Amino acid sequence: MPSRSAVVLLSGGLDSATALAIARAQGFRTHALSVAYGQRHSAELDAAARVARSLGAHEHRLMRVDLAGIGGSALTDPAIAVPESPTTGIPVTYVPARNTLMLSLALGWAEVLGARDLFIGVNVLDSSGYPDCRPAFIAAFESLAGLATKAGAEGAHFTIHAPLIELTKGEIIREGTRLGVDYALTVSCYQADREGRACGRCDSCRLRRAGFEAAGLPDPTRYA
Amino acid sequence: MPSRSAVVLLSGGLDSATALAIARAQGFRTHALSVAYGQRHSAELDAAARVARSLGAHEHRLMRVDLAGIGGSALTDPAIAVPESPTTGIPVTYVPARNTLMLSLALGWAEVLGARDLFIGVNVLDSSGYPDCRPAFIAAFESLAGLATKAGAEGAHFTIHAPLIELTKGEIIREGTRLGVDYALTVSCYQADREGRACGRCDSCRLRRAGFEAAGLPDPTRYA
Repeated sequence: MPSRSAVVLLSGGLDSATALAIARAQGFRTHALSVAYGQRHSAELDAAARVARSLGAHEHRLMRVDLAGIGGSALTDPAIAVPESPTTGIPVTYVPARNTLMLSLALGWAEVLGARDLFIGVNVLDSSGYPDCRPAFIAAFESLAGLATKAGAEGAHFTIHAPLIELTKGEIIREGTRLGVDYALTVSCYQADREGRACGRCDSCRLRRAGFEAAGLPDPTRYA
Repeated sequence: MPSRSAVVLLSGGLDSATALAIARAQGFRTHALSVAYGQRHSAELDAAARVARSLGAHEHRLMRVDLAGIGGSALTDPAIAVPESPTTGIPVTYVPARNTLMLSLALGWAEVLGARDLFIGVNVLDSSGYPDCRPAFIAAFESLAGLATKAGAEGAHFTIHAPLIELTKGEIIREGTRLGVDYALTVSCYQADREGRACGRCDSCRLRRAGFEAAGLPDPTRYA
């Protein structure tokens, strides 16, 4: 029987669905957390709900934060276009301090639940160069978590699990498939339409498509 | 002329109003940020708007986060009563991971603005024992900020200013008064009424009242 609870950040994309499957396979009772932060579309959040059900999450909660108010990213500001060809450096789809915010919300909820384990599906290899997907960031947040909380002040240790951080997209897909993830339920596209159909052209679509090819598995993505 | 921009977390209480006055006195162009996280009352947020105007903030922005959904604190969960007599240890008014969340939002906005300075009015002496008001927490967040952001990855250094952290409440009030803070505009009470009148009994009211006594200044607080 699962005994420990974990909070799992679940965007509705391929990586976080895999992270949820891994947390469950490790015996955690999973509390999935999705954050609506002003993304361009809600198809990803609908996908998160389907994935949570499909992977037997104990519960799934949605929190809203209005990051759209600060802009600064192609994912939250309609005035900034999503690139449809490869770029160099950190791209405009970077959302300022996003993973810090996500982990803060997950940490607060974990503390209320009495959970000491957080899962996040970040990945350094195929992460488009986002700084808050690097191992040093995860380690720094884990240190912070102990100092930031009542539980930490009382001696508890929080663990930030980033089980995909060193995997390629192909390895992630193979591992998730082994654990029963139905990737047809997930939406990775930065500009999916209302029905969750992918553009096939953005960074995220390109990485995903290449991942299925590398894994030698059929790509179940619905393209527009 | 002020040249650098700073994001200042502004709750509408006494401490953050003083932090805003200090940021301005140090020559920063101030971008005040208030966060509606499911507090019991909005009087504090109304106070924040008055304080921002009164202290010449360049702009004042409100972000909403639904922490009420996770509960776990007397400040966000109506089922938990605000204590009206002194308690020991970390009290039930502690909001899980609150300052981590606040600083995450401030960091994201700072990055969009091109600001490298954040101000937060935390205070370790009169902070009711909240873990995320300690110097070690502030230092850990400052380290994290460099790793969490595109700006940091490109070499920028973020400074988290906590100018009140070692001051007593009386010292804070004397410094703020010297810098022109009108404390009649601020609301500190955990359970103020709709008009912003204070209960006079909660931890926050007791610390505030004692602060004016220690400063040898009249208490302008409106009590219910």
